[in-house]
Amino acid sequence: MTRIITINREFGSGGRELGKRLADALGVPCYDHEIIEMIAKENGFDERYVANVSEKSIEAAYPLTIGHRFAMPTIQVMDQPIRVAVAQRQILENFARKGDCVIVGRCADVILKEYHPLRIFVYASMDAKVARCQERAPEGEDLSRKELERRIRQIERNRSQFREMYTDTKWGAKESYDLCINTSGREIKTLVPAVADFVDCWFGKEAE
Amino acid sequence: MTRIITINREFGSGGRELGKRLADALGVPCYDHEIIEMIAKENGFDERYVANVSEKSIEAAYPLTIGHRFAMPTIQVMDQPIRVAVAQRQILENFARKGDCVIVGRCADVILKEYHPLRIFVYASMDAKVARCQERAPEGEDLSRKELERRIRQIERNRSQFREMYTDTKWGAKESYDLCINTSGREIKTLVPAVADFVDCWFGKEAE
Repeated sequence: MTRIITINREFGSGGRELGKRLADALGVPCYDHEIIEMIAKENGFDERYVANVSEKSIEAAYPLTIGHRFAMPTIQVMDQPIRVAVAQRQILENFARKGDCVIVGRCADVILKEYHPLRIFVYASMDAKVARCQERAPEGEDLSRKELERRIRQIERNRSQFREMYTDTKWGAKESYDLCINTSGREIKTLVPAVADFVDCWFGKEAE
Repeated sequence: MTRIITINREFGSGGRELGKRLADALGVPCYDHEIIEMIAKENGFDERYVANVSEKSIEAAYPLTIGHRFAMPTIQVMDQPIRVAVAQRQILENFARKGDCVIVGRCADVILKEYHPLRIFVYASMDAKVARCQERAPEGEDLSRKELERRIRQIERNRSQFREMYTDTKWGAKESYDLCINTSGREIKTLVPAVADFVDCWFGKEAE
């Protein structure tokens, strides 16, 4: 049985780090930004644009102003997020067929539900998320706490909205996942061995 | 550092079984019905009455009809759930002082928050909860699916209401817990080794 672990996460909760470290611990590939790169490459899109389809608002996902007199025909512009979605599904299916893996984001838990993935959700308190974002801020970026909170909420709202394209199960609601982990005040690496054991138990390797 | 693990759970999710098995795996005591027995004994209450204070509606927690002409003085009747709550707090504090343990229910995660417990919430789909209840039904009990669903919802509503006596963090909301486990379609015993490892990671024994 292919062991697919999907990670959904609140922005700043350390979910991406958890995914990478978990994949290392399990000795399987972790697909994260690779998905965006492949969608972009195969469709001739800019990577930032592909990322925007899930992280920014739906409106911002349209690369050309709809209604502009000299813009691409509207139908073609409207079509682009759909092309991204189709490409994403195909790429995720290919990853799943290749074998065990960890996939971060991109609604993989829903798209690959026939593979019965272990669906993990990673979350944290707003204080913890702000602190993590501040620690990891690129040099020169100096957002206030209020600005960071606004950005976190915006990205999470968009992830939630992106998910609605695929399913009516709610983003972030525990019912949509198998395991939800609160990382507030925790170093991600200290949690990884336990999550790796959970994967083994879940897929039966260590079943009693 | 004392390792206290609190288990809150949806009715029929297998949370109680998980608590008992986890305590066995860790070699620590599990406090569950013992709490009710002790509260009852120390206060001269009936055990069913003490259980009702959390599992049944607040109204049902009053053992005597308020306003009945020959009943106990109202003030004394009103006072009884408070006596249960006070006794519960003292008993939980005593357990925590004794050392590592697993505590099922009774708002232990909130009451003992100064001990920084690992707060686990166990949940499952309604289908899975109904199936578990049917499997474990006492002989002769033959509730319809609809009746079982109603009972499950009622008990969960009362647990949620009971929690409000102690805290404004919400019962069942992932933000109120450190780890939420979906047991739908799972045998509880297969999950226990991983949860035991999680306890070790959480409290630092296996930290890298």
